[in-house]
Amino acid sequence: MRRSQFYIPTRREVAAQDSINAYLLTKAGYISQIAAGAYALLPLAVRSLHKIEQIIREEMDAIGGSEVVFTALQPQETWEKSGRWDDPNFRQIVYRDEEAGMTFGATHEEPMAIIVKEKVQSYRELPVILYQFQTKFRKELRAKSGLLRGREFRMKDLYSFHATEKEHQAFYEKCAAAYGRVFTRLGLNAYRVKASGGVFSTEFSDEFQVPCPTGEDEVWLDHTEMTGFNTEVEESMTNEQKKSHERVRSVEVGNIFHLGTKYPDAFDFKYLDADGARKSIYMGSYGIGITRLLGVLAELNNDEHGLRLPAVIAPFQCVVIDLTGEGVTGQKLYAELTAAGIETLYDDRDEPAGSKFADADLVGFPVRLVYSQKTAQEGKVELKIRGAAAVDDVELIPVEEVADRISKILATP
Amino acid sequence: MRRSQFYIPTRREVAAQDSINAYLLTKAGYISQIAAGAYALLPLAVRSLHKIEQIIREEMDAIGGSEVVFTALQPQETWEKSGRWDDPNFRQIVYRDEEAGMTFGATHEEPMAIIVKEKVQSYRELPVILYQFQTKFRKELRAKSGLLRGREFRMKDLYSFHATEKEHQAFYEKCAAAYGRVFTRLGLNAYRVKASGGVFSTEFSDEFQVPCPTGEDEVWLDHTEMTGFNTEVEESMTNEQKKSHERVRSVEVGNIFHLGTKYPDAFDFKYLDADGARKSIYMGSYGIGITRLLGVLAELNNDEHGLRLPAVIAPFQCVVIDLTGEGVTGQKLYAELTAAGIETLYDDRDEPAGSKFADADLVGFPVRLVYSQKTAQEGKVELKIRGAAAVDDVELIPVEEVADRISKILATP
Repeated sequence: MRRSQFYIPTRREVAAQDSINAYLLTKAGYISQIAAGAYALLPLAVRSLHKIEQIIREEMDAIGGSEVVFTALQPQETWEKSGRWDDPNFRQIVYRDEEAGMTFGATHEEPMAIIVKEKVQSYRELPVILYQFQTKFRKELRAKSGLLRGREFRMKDLYSFHATEKEHQAFYEKCAAAYGRVFTRLGLNAYRVKASGGVFSTEFSDEFQVPCPTGEDEVWLDHTEMTGFNTEVEESMTNEQKKSHERVRSVEVGNIFHLGTKYPDAFDFKYLDADGARKSIYMGSYGIGITRLLGVLAELNNDEHGLRLPAVIAPFQCVVIDLTGEGVTGQKLYAELTAAGIETLYDDRDEPAGSKFADADLVGFPVRLVYSQKTAQEGKVELKIRGAAAVDDVELIPVEEVADRISKILATP
Repeated sequence: MRRSQFYIPTRREVAAQDSINAYLLTKAGYISQIAAGAYALLPLAVRSLHKIEQIIREEMDAIGGSEVVFTALQPQETWEKSGRWDDPNFRQIVYRDEEAGMTFGATHEEPMAIIVKEKVQSYRELPVILYQFQTKFRKELRAKSGLLRGREFRMKDLYSFHATEKEHQAFYEKCAAAYGRVFTRLGLNAYRVKASGGVFSTEFSDEFQVPCPTGEDEVWLDHTEMTGFNTEVEESMTNEQKKSHERVRSVEVGNIFHLGTKYPDAFDFKYLDADGARKSIYMGSYGIGITRLLGVLAELNNDEHGLRLPAVIAPFQCVVIDLTGEGVTGQKLYAELTAAGIETLYDDRDEPAGSKFADADLVGFPVRLVYSQKTAQEGKVELKIRGAAAVDDVELIPVEEVADRISKILATP
């Protein structure tokens, strides 16, 4: 992509923001605030979010999930049937058009149960495992911390329907393992933390929490087991456990719930077992905050110059800057790298070198290439690595070796 | 993908629907109604819609667009500034949470002008061309015709900002040409039709209309020029034009608007020209109904057995059915075709042959492969083509030639 044709509104100055992620992502041109808790996702963020979603999609497909997209609109009647329309816990967080009798989906248990009921009648048609990448709305009173807690946000939510509690339990563990793989691929240290079921369930649930000094949660973590307890359930910890756990601030990036038979029962959704008996269906729900993930990745991966997002989700893998004024080699490198499958941005703007360098650090390209009069004399390019884990090493390498070299760098986790 | 792990809720019987597309897409397991004008998009639809979006993305990128995702939430204040909060034309179609002072985006002129203003100050930073695939909400009083007119739908909307009216005009034509390429790639005969600016503009606009006997619009079309007039502007037709045009029913699949300087001016968004003078900015908006496209493609491409979607947007390109009971060859074919990049569904269900055949026709796989005791004797597979334009030809081909053959079939437009 040529920078001149791709909208990256980096800014020199940004008004004070409520968090590091909002400040950096705004300054680097990824997002822009529209209202409290509502951010426009600009082109760089869209690219990163597509990559985050693709990683999650692969892991959800691998455990048998099928991708759907349900409507945000949900009619009043269905929420009355499940008892949530008048539930004050939901009343305060759910947007609704009272006149139209519609809620704007904060969560999708009702329509999932209703739609799956249309098809499933027998044990032979279970389990059903559906997930979506969807926009959720929550009337947060305390929208804050940039992408960490918004009024409108992207979420992956998965719903599973099982014939027996045992089968549900087995899938619950399978999904927990898949979540572990997702967070590892994103370079996050996520702990599986015991929590209450909150407004969703009377059973315990599991949260996935990432330690983060600026997070709004507090959790007790066991760094050996990568498990923990959140503060809602800390009374259930033994003294032994209190000793092996550390209390730290964190961000919840995922959660998984046992919903029991509540929602299927509310819509009289049952199945016939092998003996023809009509039985209740066990349901679970499993969420990952997509925009929140970008927020926590920004919160954890940065330095005084800007973002250092992991290469696997950075919007581009490489930026090419040609300072010779002619741009012949820059364009050639850009074409070569693109042909080699390396997502490259060519900074073709008529801007001073310092401004291009500052932008490259701010946006956080994992690899920066600079071709100048000086490097040209040796037939070389300056290569700087700025991955999440890397130090900012600079070296000169021959022009013809660049593509190979970058491919190797990006292949190294 | 294995059918047993992919949710395709085809149905033998479906309650009466308000349109062919709603009936067929529901029966074939693509969609399921949640409320009037609100359909859950099931896995088959999600796959087709991703393909439709990718075609549009390529064409929008090619004319210099950058992809964003704005929030549906839009605060009351911004709609008051542009004068739309109290405009009865919008009041009746826009969902709002009065208590929260929020609208749910039916259209995005306001936030686009506000966000672009934050960055753009000089003529050197124009044009800006942003587009999104986004969920829109419209309080349709007459939600009907399945995916053709919904209360919640996917839309590609693009907004452009230009220094001069002339530059806007040039981009407007460039975008019209890109729309033409999109519809051609989707196998649709779209006419460029002159229309009023409706609630958006006092200037003429252009609609892209596809002839469709079940469409809700009526337009005058010139089949030689692929242009026309909609009924709002039919008084402007000359007698000559009335003769060369035919009045037909149609579906509007896209529209493009001159917005003049209205929205930028409402937010005092101006730019400095080369002489330092402060000038108004010309804006345009350009929409394509994504879910509606799937609806019209279903409406136009079907027969008594089911859907015949074009291969380029069919959810899978091929289905493999192995009737030998062992499934060895079926699985081998499935693995081979998948490795060859052909999107294949392996129907591994324990169902009678007739039921698998009926499902294959109903869903509309462009290529159907059947391996049976009979074809096995000759080392062959039965191949049936069911593309949008094809007759249902059946032939036997050697097992080892299948992947090559299908690749050739799919490469032929």
